[in-house]
Amino acid sequence: MDAHTSILPIGAPSVARGTSRLFLRNQIMVQSEVSLRNGRRADLMGLTTKGEIIIVEIKCSRADLLGDQKWPEYLEYCDRFFWAVPAGFDIGPLHGEAFMPERAGLIIADAYDAEIARPAALVPLATARRKTETQRLARLAMRRLMGIADPDPILAEIEAE
Amino acid sequence: MDAHTSILPIGAPSVARGTSRLFLRNQIMVQSEVSLRNGRRADLMGLTTKGEIIIVEIKCSRADLLGDQKWPEYLEYCDRFFWAVPAGFDIGPLHGEAFMPERAGLIIADAYDAEIARPAALVPLATARRKTETQRLARLAMRRLMGIADPDPILAEIEAE
Repeated sequence: MDAHTSILPIGAPSVARGTSRLFLRNQIMVQSEVSLRNGRRADLMGLTTKGEIIIVEIKCSRADLLGDQKWPEYLEYCDRFFWAVPAGFDIGPLHGEAFMPERAGLIIADAYDAEIARPAALVPLATARRKTETQRLARLAMRRLMGIADPDPILAEIEAE
Repeated sequence: MDAHTSILPIGAPSVARGTSRLFLRNQIMVQSEVSLRNGRRADLMGLTTKGEIIIVEIKCSRADLLGDQKWPEYLEYCDRFFWAVPAGFDIGPLHGEAFMPERAGLIIADAYDAEIARPAALVPLATARRKTETQRLARLAMRRLMGIADPDPILAEIEAE
């Protein structure tokens, strides 16, 4: 058994938790599973104190990473983009051109914490789009809080438009 | 016992719930207890589909209503303002000039639902302020979701700036 396979596999929820803790300490507020208007879904999406929009795509398997040809579609909806992978993940492919290392940051996470292995470039969205996405993030997060505060089944089907 | 006192008293949490249900059906997403930058705290604050900022102030006692001289400070942080009161509350004072009936809407709520007794005028915020408040709403709601997803006590003290 080599060093990688001796590490217990860490799933996406653990990577999300570790990454969220890193962000929280740095005043970046995020939520999970945010559907984008282009049909993709961001694993984590949120806002810095400056209002920059952050998207994080979590990859826990090499096959999932290498098979994702359409990931640049995320770039249309954020000012900064990060990959997040579990500790022990082979990050070799993420240095390759197909994964735009000059643009995409890299977060290495376990279930308890995370660190930024490579910062993400700031590529500002158009102002109008950032405004729309900020509103969508706000309304989705409040919708989720409303559902937690009042889990009435009749209301449960109402999605934030 | 007259008609009013025969109604069991309804507290602010019930009014908040009924009002939130009304809003949810109308695609207005809100959260509770939002501190404003002027030191006041909005009982409910949220966003319409158009991005208009809504504030609701809940009053369950006549004394609380009549003693609140500073409520117009809410108007500086919203595009539309509503009073929300429990069914059976004497709404007479809310027709008086001091409570700006031409500006402030009125919601009558019970614990299960609510209705708009008087619509709220739209008095648009300056664009820069609406942007700031929308970001604050988004970051606060996401902060709250992060705390629910990961109630780690060390992180619990971090507030959204």
